[in-house]
Amino acid sequence: MSKNILQQKIEKLHTAQKSLSLMGAAMRNTVLQIVATLMKEQREVIFAANARDLIAAERAGLAKPLLKRLRFDEQKLISACDGMLQIVDLDDPIHQVRLQRELDEGLILTQETCPIGVIGMIFESRPDALIQIASLCLKSGNGIVLKGGSEALATNRVLTKIFKDVSNAVFPPEVAGDWIHLIEKRESVAEMLNMTEYIDLIIPRGSKKFVKYIMDNTSIAVLGHADGICHCFIDSSADQELAVRVTIDSKCQYPAACNAVETILIHKSCAKQILPMLCEALEAKGVEIRGDERVRDIVLCTPAVEADWSTEYLDLIVSIKVVDSVEQAVNHINTYGSSHTDCIITKDRDHAEFFMDAVDSADVYWNCSTRFADGYRYGLGAEVGISTNKIHARGPVGLEGLISYKWKLRGHGQIVEDYTGPDAKGFTHKDL
Amino acid sequence: MSKNILQQKIEKLHTAQKSLSLMGAAMRNTVLQIVATLMKEQREVIFAANARDLIAAERAGLAKPLLKRLRFDEQKLISACDGMLQIVDLDDPIHQVRLQRELDEGLILTQETCPIGVIGMIFESRPDALIQIASLCLKSGNGIVLKGGSEALATNRVLTKIFKDVSNAVFPPEVAGDWIHLIEKRESVAEMLNMTEYIDLIIPRGSKKFVKYIMDNTSIAVLGHADGICHCFIDSSADQELAVRVTIDSKCQYPAACNAVETILIHKSCAKQILPMLCEALEAKGVEIRGDERVRDIVLCTPAVEADWSTEYLDLIVSIKVVDSVEQAVNHINTYGSSHTDCIITKDRDHAEFFMDAVDSADVYWNCSTRFADGYRYGLGAEVGISTNKIHARGPVGLEGLISYKWKLRGHGQIVEDYTGPDAKGFTHKDL
Repeated sequence: MSKNILQQKIEKLHTAQKSLSLMGAAMRNTVLQIVATLMKEQREVIFAANARDLIAAERAGLAKPLLKRLRFDEQKLISACDGMLQIVDLDDPIHQVRLQRELDEGLILTQETCPIGVIGMIFESRPDALIQIASLCLKSGNGIVLKGGSEALATNRVLTKIFKDVSNAVFPPEVAGDWIHLIEKRESVAEMLNMTEYIDLIIPRGSKKFVKYIMDNTSIAVLGHADGICHCFIDSSADQELAVRVTIDSKCQYPAACNAVETILIHKSCAKQILPMLCEALEAKGVEIRGDERVRDIVLCTPAVEADWSTEYLDLIVSIKVVDSVEQAVNHINTYGSSHTDCIITKDRDHAEFFMDAVDSADVYWNCSTRFADGYRYGLGAEVGISTNKIHARGPVGLEGLISYKWKLRGHGQIVEDYTGPDAKGFTHKDL
Repeated sequence: MSKNILQQKIEKLHTAQKSLSLMGAAMRNTVLQIVATLMKEQREVIFAANARDLIAAERAGLAKPLLKRLRFDEQKLISACDGMLQIVDLDDPIHQVRLQRELDEGLILTQETCPIGVIGMIFESRPDALIQIASLCLKSGNGIVLKGGSEALATNRVLTKIFKDVSNAVFPPEVAGDWIHLIEKRESVAEMLNMTEYIDLIIPRGSKKFVKYIMDNTSIAVLGHADGICHCFIDSSADQELAVRVTIDSKCQYPAACNAVETILIHKSCAKQILPMLCEALEAKGVEIRGDERVRDIVLCTPAVEADWSTEYLDLIVSIKVVDSVEQAVNHINTYGSSHTDCIITKDRDHAEFFMDAVDSADVYWNCSTRFADGYRYGLGAEVGISTNKIHARGPVGLEGLISYKWKLRGHGQIVEDYTGPDAKGFTHKDL
């Protein structure tokens, strides 16, 4: 079967990535630095392209929040370029020795970090996401296939071209600008999701529906999360003022975030005391409350239905349920949650530790806001995404999410036959 | 939709696993110790069941190598029970703190290991594989759904029952023997591969065709490898005697193993010198040689065709090709190999380091046999399998392949709003 142009491009990218992984950290960092400088120099070209995208998007009736994400202004440019220079300052994530072990005299095993290979990034609207992920891939020696939303095409083209131009000038011809490619046609997404031979990891960024579509339509590994159904559980011994403060922040600080709380669970023994002040505080923030029967016995609110427990509102709506015990809270979360971020508010250390062990989520908190679940707040240096997988990286994922490892064994002619049978030599297995 | 009996069983197992993960290491180890004792005590019951399986398999005309794998005798029993006691002695792989970081005063982040959840193990013939993987899952707090070959059903039933009986006696009722389940019907495999909600990782063990079938028919993550197309590259400066010794061991020490060599690459500048003695040594071991044109200019052998470069013989057959440079060897391996284990034989350190960096395989070797690629030889304590994935674990995988992690954040009412905006508090990000 003959290969179409996209397949040829990605095959070339796949080959270029192998050479990129051999480039020293200094050269990869130089490209990043020059790209950051050039982006500032070419700001007018970038803003003009972005203006074209914005005009077309407004004409097409794109929703306000998406228009906001699409806008790439001076502030976003400065912040993206600062981000690139911070990435330059990070330690080289590849060629790092993680383990060194003598198997026998003169037979030395090491485990060394290396890039995953080729990353496929599919994202909506935000052109700054392109800069961030391309920079992280370059830093870590990975190739990148980008597919942005069609609404951002002109901006994404200009940004990709800067990465390509600088790479063409700095890298040797076997790498050049071939490690990065922007897919322009929507039809190519399906093709991209089938490139199991060339793409090692897909990172989708966008709405829940969008991420779910990606996950259901590829056999390539996906790093991300579809749902963010997060919980606060207010335990019997919770401090009232603290419970209200943390819950309000978790729900209201940025309701559209994946780590915002969607359901509050409250212990029956403190529900009468805490619910009135909690609901007053929520309503003061404009939050619509949907309560189960026991909640509605205490405060006036909309009845919650079964579907509420598994709904990610991403909005100023919250469901509240009264539970009998910490165990019941844990069961509710493990049943209806999305294994993202869940918090217990309690003075009881044993309850807190039990909750954090028993809740099967990427992030489990005690007495602090679920909104802390974020790579920057965790000090990861850079955020690749938040994963609810338990394979590979989990929770907020930094550069290590783009890293794999290989085993190197250096010997002097050792053979396995000598370590087999009745007169077998033994292994020393001495960590060095 | 009502759930069938299998779904109900696996749902119960999924719940039991959550409780199992909360059991202390002592209790998990106690179960392992008693299982090992009981297996030895009930040897006659086990051997009788195995005899029934063997008789039926012989009648059904099962191939000799499979019959050999199916036989579960005194030696295999002793070795399996010894293995279990070694697993008891390993450090607890879960509840380990990997990272501890102060985000701000009194806001402490930790990253702690935890089980992946429920493992699905699909294997052919070998009942000892059941004991090994069930022990590793128990040690690491994972639940396990087992599907063995129908030819081993009677043996597998007895072995599983021992795990269940001991677990029922030792664990509290919310765990009991529910963390392990043996699937008996072949039709249930397809169902198992669709249980994305309950099974977190599939580990297949068996033929290449079998593993490939599993990989192509599930969206659950698979830990394993379909192919093992491994290479030895004999570089221009290779020591002749060493080259022959390492290559013979890599090809002949156990040709049916996934880490045995299938293709030998040899540098043009030493081909004339080394090929005659290498081929003589291979033929003395009964190996059929398939050479490319330049090989056949030097020694008499069968012509290699294009398909040979991507064939895993698993037999006393080897393909040989002359290459012009280490770069060409690397390209050949990255094109035709299976990213498993590849070796360079050379005196040139720079060539060796380039080869090990540039070959994109799980295991890359210098001057030693590819047959070393194995969890026991690496000193991993126990082997879960060998993975050619670059996501999660790569190469020989020990207990850490069954481990994920979660982030715990312990605070005193901290909220994100205080770290946002113009008067934002800063993070300290101090590793503890």
